[in-house]
Amino acid sequence: MKSSVLRLLPAVGLALVLCAAAPAADQPMLGFSRAGAERERALEAQFDAALRREDLRDWMQRLTAHPHHLGSPYGKQVADFIAAQFRSWGYETEIERFDVLFPTPKTRRLEMTGPETFTARLAEPPLPQDTTSGLTAEQLPIYNVYSADGDVTGEIVYVNYGAPKDYEILAERGIDVRGKIVLARYGSVWRGIKPKVAAEQGALGCLIYSDPRDDGFFQGDVYPAGGWRSADGAQRGSVADMPLYAGDPLTPGVGATPEAKRLPIKDAPTLTKIPVLPISAADAAPLLHALGGPVAPEAWRGALPFTYHLGPGPARAHLQVEFDWKLVPAYDVIAKLRGAERPDEWVIRGNHHDAWVCGADDPISGQVEMMEEARGLGELAQRGWKPKRTIVFAAWDGEEPGLLGSTEWVETHADLLRQKAAVYINGDNNERGFLSVGGSHTLEKFVNEIAREVIDPERKIPVAERLRAERLVTTSAEDRREIRARADLRIDALGSGSDYTPFLQHLGIACLDIRYGGEESGDAYHSIYDSFDHYLRFGDTNFEYGIALAQTSGRALLRLADADVLPLEFTGFADAIGKYLKEVTQLADDLREGTSETNRLILDKTLEYAADPRQPYVAPMPKPSVPYLNFAPLQNALARLQESARKFESARQAAQTNGQALPREAQQPLDDILMKVEQALTRPEGLPRRPWYQHLIYAPGFYTGYGVKTLPGVREAIEQRHWAEAEQQIGIAATALVKYASEIDRARQVMAKIPPG
Amino acid sequence: MKSSVLRLLPAVGLALVLCAAAPAADQPMLGFSRAGAERERALEAQFDAALRREDLRDWMQRLTAHPHHLGSPYGKQVADFIAAQFRSWGYETEIERFDVLFPTPKTRRLEMTGPETFTARLAEPPLPQDTTSGLTAEQLPIYNVYSADGDVTGEIVYVNYGAPKDYEILAERGIDVRGKIVLARYGSVWRGIKPKVAAEQGALGCLIYSDPRDDGFFQGDVYPAGGWRSADGAQRGSVADMPLYAGDPLTPGVGATPEAKRLPIKDAPTLTKIPVLPISAADAAPLLHALGGPVAPEAWRGALPFTYHLGPGPARAHLQVEFDWKLVPAYDVIAKLRGAERPDEWVIRGNHHDAWVCGADDPISGQVEMMEEARGLGELAQRGWKPKRTIVFAAWDGEEPGLLGSTEWVETHADLLRQKAAVYINGDNNERGFLSVGGSHTLEKFVNEIAREVIDPERKIPVAERLRAERLVTTSAEDRREIRARADLRIDALGSGSDYTPFLQHLGIACLDIRYGGEESGDAYHSIYDSFDHYLRFGDTNFEYGIALAQTSGRALLRLADADVLPLEFTGFADAIGKYLKEVTQLADDLREGTSETNRLILDKTLEYAADPRQPYVAPMPKPSVPYLNFAPLQNALARLQESARKFESARQAAQTNGQALPREAQQPLDDILMKVEQALTRPEGLPRRPWYQHLIYAPGFYTGYGVKTLPGVREAIEQRHWAEAEQQIGIAATALVKYASEIDRARQVMAKIPPG
Repeated sequence: MKSSVLRLLPAVGLALVLCAAAPAADQPMLGFSRAGAERERALEAQFDAALRREDLRDWMQRLTAHPHHLGSPYGKQVADFIAAQFRSWGYETEIERFDVLFPTPKTRRLEMTGPETFTARLAEPPLPQDTTSGLTAEQLPIYNVYSADGDVTGEIVYVNYGAPKDYEILAERGIDVRGKIVLARYGSVWRGIKPKVAAEQGALGCLIYSDPRDDGFFQGDVYPAGGWRSADGAQRGSVADMPLYAGDPLTPGVGATPEAKRLPIKDAPTLTKIPVLPISAADAAPLLHALGGPVAPEAWRGALPFTYHLGPGPARAHLQVEFDWKLVPAYDVIAKLRGAERPDEWVIRGNHHDAWVCGADDPISGQVEMMEEARGLGELAQRGWKPKRTIVFAAWDGEEPGLLGSTEWVETHADLLRQKAAVYINGDNNERGFLSVGGSHTLEKFVNEIAREVIDPERKIPVAERLRAERLVTTSAEDRREIRARADLRIDALGSGSDYTPFLQHLGIACLDIRYGGEESGDAYHSIYDSFDHYLRFGDTNFEYGIALAQTSGRALLRLADADVLPLEFTGFADAIGKYLKEVTQLADDLREGTSETNRLILDKTLEYAADPRQPYVAPMPKPSVPYLNFAPLQNALARLQESARKFESARQAAQTNGQALPREAQQPLDDILMKVEQALTRPEGLPRRPWYQHLIYAPGFYTGYGVKTLPGVREAIEQRHWAEAEQQIGIAATALVKYASEIDRARQVMAKIPPG
Repeated sequence: MKSSVLRLLPAVGLALVLCAAAPAADQPMLGFSRAGAERERALEAQFDAALRREDLRDWMQRLTAHPHHLGSPYGKQVADFIAAQFRSWGYETEIERFDVLFPTPKTRRLEMTGPETFTARLAEPPLPQDTTSGLTAEQLPIYNVYSADGDVTGEIVYVNYGAPKDYEILAERGIDVRGKIVLARYGSVWRGIKPKVAAEQGALGCLIYSDPRDDGFFQGDVYPAGGWRSADGAQRGSVADMPLYAGDPLTPGVGATPEAKRLPIKDAPTLTKIPVLPISAADAAPLLHALGGPVAPEAWRGALPFTYHLGPGPARAHLQVEFDWKLVPAYDVIAKLRGAERPDEWVIRGNHHDAWVCGADDPISGQVEMMEEARGLGELAQRGWKPKRTIVFAAWDGEEPGLLGSTEWVETHADLLRQKAAVYINGDNNERGFLSVGGSHTLEKFVNEIAREVIDPERKIPVAERLRAERLVTTSAEDRREIRARADLRIDALGSGSDYTPFLQHLGIACLDIRYGGEESGDAYHSIYDSFDHYLRFGDTNFEYGIALAQTSGRALLRLADADVLPLEFTGFADAIGKYLKEVTQLADDLREGTSETNRLILDKTLEYAADPRQPYVAPMPKPSVPYLNFAPLQNALARLQESARKFESARQAAQTNGQALPREAQQPLDDILMKVEQALTRPEGLPRRPWYQHLIYAPGFYTGYGVKTLPGVREAIEQRHWAEAEQQIGIAATALVKYASEIDRARQVMAKIPPG
């Protein structure tokens, strides 16, 4: 590899090396010797120099030319095109097919039947300023996939975001949704939570609308004048109970291959129990406006120009939805570049290609960027570079309905992946703005090193520095102290909402999810207006942040593929666990204090006395007091983990004194341990009531959906007030962390056997 | 008095005594012996029993039948009617006239001249559901009194609430209002602050509109369906620079009598420097909608259904206002019931009678309630009750333009009042809801005793208990601990906005301001829709809270008039001072830390790095660091005050052992000290740059208007970063507090001379 890199050097733009990579040139690089880091940086400079914004633009224009949802004709063409590209760049490429449940609407009807009548339009009008918005015949209509069939009529109740706590507030006002149709707004919790909770509460049906407060004119100018959602825009999306399991609803835990045993549709537990329909603000406004009952609490009020009431009624609705419950093919494009030295260690990079409609932002902005990475690596390979490890690119189908393409692939190849997958790097959408990274905290230092070397294309400072500035400006004084004291920026823990979930949370493969964003001028999420025309005006308008992402994620791939040993680091992980443990301890304390306080306010009638005597008010029932929990097992496990992490770090530094490489004979044995260490955080029995989720540190929340719950078994047991389960889960998580610490110790012992350099 | 009370007893409704006053029957009553308290409670029960809701309704209907602003024909009739009533109840009554500046509009014009054209309506349409809304010819048009004349044209800038910090945020976005017309929304700071700050910033003119977010449909259903302000409703009001001085702009510090020397209008410092006009949401919407420039920060966005931009322009406006700068007569009704024992100690009770239009809520709800108090006391007097002290009722004119009637009366009789006024009790508007009390903290315990004895008409518990419940439910855990630990509920410190200001802040007369409210269903503040029809549906719909206020404020009057010694208490006052001192110390610390932190973020470019590179961003200039201030003089003064208060309280309790009365010979000398003790908190030189405000503990904020600043000299010097002045004001306030403590000591010595009972 050394010779090939040297051979490539003359092609590197010198200016670029100096201005972009130079500040970090003498910084250590996790997993590399000093010399190795120098070679790697030269390679990265060459990679950077080859990146072309035109590719991103051209491919986006092509891939977004027609709607390309799961099962669509153009979706197949998209997969074929991507596959052809990968082949042309020298990758071993195949398309892997799965057959998955993908209901599409046969009937969608929503009418207000009283006090006035109104028939909802349920369609987004084409716009002359948006070329693809007029491809009506190819577009999926506005709907929520995996809604139950249903034909229901009832009074409407406005339930805010439709989270469990919203129903508590309704109950205090004497409002019950049994036999009613709930009208929830998008936001706060993942959309699939809304019908799940509504059904738990006894509602007949669930409407979900896009309030302009959350992603419409309140935030900024609406399309086509600006980028935000217009009153006619609606949000498609899955409402599967994904916190139960991801992927095809009919094949939990196994790949949706032809021979797979499928659940009968009626038994699939992730399908909703009640009919659901997403609607635009324009369709929601007459219903909401016609509601009576108490005025909604201030935090519940959106931006529509009238007073928000809760109902129930007098607005009544008739909601009818019926679906074609068919199986469709999902086409995953899988492309490999074989590792020269450790072919059985895979670094996997994925981004979905299916969209709800044309999906310029979601997911094509990420897809074309990933393709550019692949082209860049392919070019390096054609010029002689050989990765140590195998690189696998995956363009997933069927992410939108519920991570189908990725999940079915992961489930199909679970055993292989448990053996070979080292790290999975996910992408999805990408916009102007700040670096955003989530993932396994063993990769926190790794990704921080990269973020200090990639330059923000507009602000011309390292993206890490820009992100640090943004965090400093938007946070509390306490967090600011932490940010300043800490060498690395924290990365987010991953919940769900993109294709990392099966890798991380089902199999326990270390993951990263990398994007840019936050300075786009609005988006048109899951609507016909998420188009090439829209993205060019409001997304990453000149694809500069696409290139920044290629530099970021490309570096991650290059380094993961080339490193002497996998660049995992454990003190950052231990620090994150310490933070989460502090959070759950605090959660229990706060819940104890809050419960005691609320009970006091209930029992001494303070709540009743403060309530308006002319409004219905039902004081909540006092709750059993919150016991003190025994967190000692987790605290002891954390202490053990911290010690193991510290010792490993000392050993690594000792073994690499003066920046020398770890001896070759130690590299593979170390990797063998490191690539599987994250799996020690999983448990085959999974989390309570959802065995598919096996990771004990990261999970999507059972009642938040996308939102992460760290230490989920413990945290959710506390939140749900299951005290025995909380203590049990403390023990389970502690055991896993101790096992994990032992793996770190094993890895250290491999290094300890290295003769001193 | 004993005999007369006994004679009256048979008239008392027994049930009422048992249910309302009974729980407190054996509680001590500040200023009374045990026997005296018993007699007083019997008298109060009789007073309560005589109160009639019909009176409030009938008088309100009569007084709101026509617009009755300062200088209007019906305003004179209102004064005459009130005076006639007082006379009929046995009061020595006179109408005192002042001649005050009261400009009314000759020209009001507002047009958008680009990019589209639009002419503002500047009128509230009559409604068939609102009888008096159609009396257009008698109504004052929508305007802000004491606006300068002006004819200006310029681009518009949206400035949020128009407070100084709003302009800092504009400056960070590179937006300057020099040569522009600012569009501010009502709220947050008092309206008079908005044109004052706009002029300081160089604006040509100022428009103030009512955003539906703040008092329109966002809050609740709008008139006539509900009680909140409709899109056509606008808020009249004064924009005098009242934090400089209250009252007639031409006669600062002296009564506006015929012989008073008047300032030339051009020299009157409380008039605005630029033209101002209040407008409705309907008139503001086209201007606001036509603004370009950056999207307004989230907290600045109102409830109008479009994206809020800052400008400047492209919306341009032409604003023209011209006034008839005339003097008009103000008619104060002054009615006295002479004290039998200490006629030269006055307990004064006031409420204004002038309105912006018909003013059912503001001020007639308070005015008719005060009249009912007066009728009740008159009835007691006719049946033999004789107050120890003189009771003075005042129905003020010209409160709306700037507390004219009260201020001119106070200024005219300043020397007399300094000698004779013991306490002033103010009312204004009154609605359904919770007790709300502000005032001198020497009266905190006094008013708490009353609030524990008055029963909430709807919730049927003492109003103190209801208010305590409301505070417990709406506050932080820390404040909740304090509320529970404290025997008394804190009363608010008074800023400005009603007629207590000249008494409290100009002369140093102890004050209370008492109202109910918070559960009205919206109001129509300063609009033609603040009408009898509106109040009956949305205010205190059946006048039950009017009766509760009569019971509260009536008890205060009775007790203040009858007490053996004035019921002042100093430990509560010392506690309040301790709280304010802690606040200003914390303010200095926070400002120091905040300045240092912001300077750091500026100097290390964090703010710049975090800003969107495509948006204009101007980092603020670093500010000089905040020095440590010497608070020791105030801390020592507080210690002295606490000691004096404690000793006084011990002496009082010792002198009244077993609930016996203070010896008669000690009562008058004690009163002589107590009635003037608040004056020790004043200083003839007044506050920096506003000598009219002489109270060193309570003042309206120079940049908040109505909002109170406690320890104002110190607090505002810190806020304005005048460090030398802050230390000077610390010394001044400390000196006053020490002098005040000496007065308490003097009072204690009077008690010490009492031979042991």
